[in-house]
Amino acid sequence: MKNILLLGAGRSASVLIEYLVINAPQEKWQLAIGDVRVDHLSASLLENPLVRAFAFDVHDAAQREEEVGKADVVISMLPALFHPLVAHTCLEQEKHLVTASYVPEDIKQLHTQAQEKGLTFLMECGLDPGIDHMSAMQIIHHLQAQGATITSFRSFTGGLMAPASDTNPWHYKFTWNPRNVILAGQSTAKYIEDGSYKYIPYPQLFHRTQTFAVDGYGLFDGYANRDSLSYREPYGLQEIPTMLRGTLRRPGYCQAWHVLVQLGLPDDTYFLDNPQEMTYRQLVESFLPASQENLSLRERIAAYTGIPSTAPELDLIEWAGLLEEEPIAMITATPAQALEKLLTQKWQLSPGDKDMIVMLHLFEYELDGQRHKLTSSLVVLGDDEVHTAMAKTVGLPVGIATKLLLQGQLKQTGVVVPLQAEVYAPVLQELQAFGVQFQERVETLGA
Amino acid sequence: MKNILLLGAGRSASVLIEYLVINAPQEKWQLAIGDVRVDHLSASLLENPLVRAFAFDVHDAAQREEEVGKADVVISMLPALFHPLVAHTCLEQEKHLVTASYVPEDIKQLHTQAQEKGLTFLMECGLDPGIDHMSAMQIIHHLQAQGATITSFRSFTGGLMAPASDTNPWHYKFTWNPRNVILAGQSTAKYIEDGSYKYIPYPQLFHRTQTFAVDGYGLFDGYANRDSLSYREPYGLQEIPTMLRGTLRRPGYCQAWHVLVQLGLPDDTYFLDNPQEMTYRQLVESFLPASQENLSLRERIAAYTGIPSTAPELDLIEWAGLLEEEPIAMITATPAQALEKLLTQKWQLSPGDKDMIVMLHLFEYELDGQRHKLTSSLVVLGDDEVHTAMAKTVGLPVGIATKLLLQGQLKQTGVVVPLQAEVYAPVLQELQAFGVQFQERVETLGA
Repeated sequence: MKNILLLGAGRSASVLIEYLVINAPQEKWQLAIGDVRVDHLSASLLENPLVRAFAFDVHDAAQREEEVGKADVVISMLPALFHPLVAHTCLEQEKHLVTASYVPEDIKQLHTQAQEKGLTFLMECGLDPGIDHMSAMQIIHHLQAQGATITSFRSFTGGLMAPASDTNPWHYKFTWNPRNVILAGQSTAKYIEDGSYKYIPYPQLFHRTQTFAVDGYGLFDGYANRDSLSYREPYGLQEIPTMLRGTLRRPGYCQAWHVLVQLGLPDDTYFLDNPQEMTYRQLVESFLPASQENLSLRERIAAYTGIPSTAPELDLIEWAGLLEEEPIAMITATPAQALEKLLTQKWQLSPGDKDMIVMLHLFEYELDGQRHKLTSSLVVLGDDEVHTAMAKTVGLPVGIATKLLLQGQLKQTGVVVPLQAEVYAPVLQELQAFGVQFQERVETLGA
Repeated sequence: MKNILLLGAGRSASVLIEYLVINAPQEKWQLAIGDVRVDHLSASLLENPLVRAFAFDVHDAAQREEEVGKADVVISMLPALFHPLVAHTCLEQEKHLVTASYVPEDIKQLHTQAQEKGLTFLMECGLDPGIDHMSAMQIIHHLQAQGATITSFRSFTGGLMAPASDTNPWHYKFTWNPRNVILAGQSTAKYIEDGSYKYIPYPQLFHRTQTFAVDGYGLFDGYANRDSLSYREPYGLQEIPTMLRGTLRRPGYCQAWHVLVQLGLPDDTYFLDNPQEMTYRQLVESFLPASQENLSLRERIAAYTGIPSTAPELDLIEWAGLLEEEPIAMITATPAQALEKLLTQKWQLSPGDKDMIVMLHLFEYELDGQRHKLTSSLVVLGDDEVHTAMAKTVGLPVGIATKLLLQGQLKQTGVVVPLQAEVYAPVLQELQAFGVQFQERVETLGA
């Protein structure tokens, strides 16, 4: 028997747990699941003889050491800030580790020690980061093997709503940490285009979008992520003239968010002076100069942000309730916190809502004197409230990679991300069985 | 004899030193001057029997204690970050302290201890903060004594160039820490207007200016300072409907700076990727989307920031050299550091240049059923490169307040700022002898 310790059994772990339970008999796994509380887990799971669920406190060092000590591999689906703690215990107890989160600096520093002990700390093995790396590297390695020179790589991912559940004018609901959505993009985005470094400060970010069509799913706007430059080296694209990573939203969202940014609403750097006495309308008013003319609030926002008062982005802002005399009703609040409270109500999932993950890779390359464009797109729809697209695309790669690790198929040791064929080829292969499959199209652009 | 210890003898202390030296014989003062180096001080000063100059290292605790211990009052003109260190030594050695800087939190906490020892730590006693407080409080107390209700108070200060030295299209040269000028306004400005809180995020700050005329000196634009709200309580204006503090520039400056902010140039939060290979033109280019059309760089900046390509702010940006293929020539640089390097060259003082301090207070109040407007303005011109307007307006209030303290005329103890008549009345009175005198005008606005 092999012992798997899964730490963190929240919403995004649901599909992962199913995958591990289904594979357990054949793979001869015992699964231990630790979380702050485990009473939300299903009876059938708790009664499964291959599963042991227990209350887990990450700050309890004795419990952490004991549980990690019993495992062959540890999967951490805890909030990312706890991963260094878990990684140190894994190193101490000499256990492999798998996570779906970015490699933080203090885990990066464990690389040599993990290598010396023959351990694999496989990080960034979920959706984004995760499937984005794997699917991109498969294409990059394939093109390079043909002798192609890659001149441009743009990659975008979005966690959105399935068409049938896309029922508000923002075309967005929260399926992810609301705070991260509210504060998205607040540090300058960096990328490279035609060999020139490009910087987009926050006030321009939602204005400088690119629009893409995905067959059968319509249009998407992409805005740039924080740092697209740091991926050049791990992807082996040090000399690439154009490289940009970004986030997808449905058309309309970025335009309306840009108005909120121009006003100053998504600001988490100071506290409002009297949020307990303020309405959302007054909050918006607080970002505008005092009115000199007899204009409506909508007209004043339009004039201030330089758009026509009939602009559709203002419809989205009205729909969100930002122009209403609805009390903020918070004792302390930054503008961003007040906005988050309102949007958490407005962008709430309804029962039966299904989510959608969209990933797009756009490559340009030269091969045999011809210029080509390769578009690879992934659309994953949620099945229901448990089997969301997010839970599938985050959980399945983690589960598959864990299986590969326990089967001894992953040779790399140290702190690694899934950029090598030994990881991405079998993971992407098995993902197809779960409907996680990219569509690829190549066009010739000429000489 | 009384002993004054002056710590910090840089450019802004020149007039203060003269004031102390001139008053020394009559007031029976001995003046000790400590600075990192004192060899820039004039021979006549160094030979004055009432003066002792010495190399001073603020981090040398033994020296700090010894020198502070010998003094009756300590004046700190050191960079503001060293004031807490000096204040703690003053408390320990039971000595009074005078500075021209804002009260930092760790000095505020010494209030009760200073009071218990009968010590006066007089802070914010320069120009801004300093003369701004004193002149405002004199008016506020005068209006309140008449029974007036103050409904609006806006106050602006600027360190600019005297008309004869105002020789570039920005109407600005560095007379103060360049870094502070480059990074000015980067946290949200807060004020209150007609009873409503108002917030101006950085991207809008230089766009939301107010224009004022000063008799004989033409027009000035004012932009809002960081926090105008915190002054309501110390000024006794808790219920005032409109209160705003700001900074003055000549017309044109704020409009052009707004373009730089929109591009993202005054950003100190990240490092450029290859500043050693980049020109200023390329730096500007890095903030623009790749050109799709055959437009000049000036035309593209205009289109991107939503102004006509003939707009005069673009002339200022061209004049600054930002569109030229001039190498940045720095090994590491944030965009703000690169901008600072360029502007330090362009906004350099020429020999003989004279500076100018402008301060404006605009009050509105109701008295006997009538609404009135009171404008109080101060213009101070520099005499020469030593007797700058900045050195006069920062140094003289410090010198005069020190004299009052040694004469026993200041009764307040603890950590205090010059808001009381016992300080402001004699300081403002004596400042007039040095040509630092406000002009006041009252207009009746109707019932």
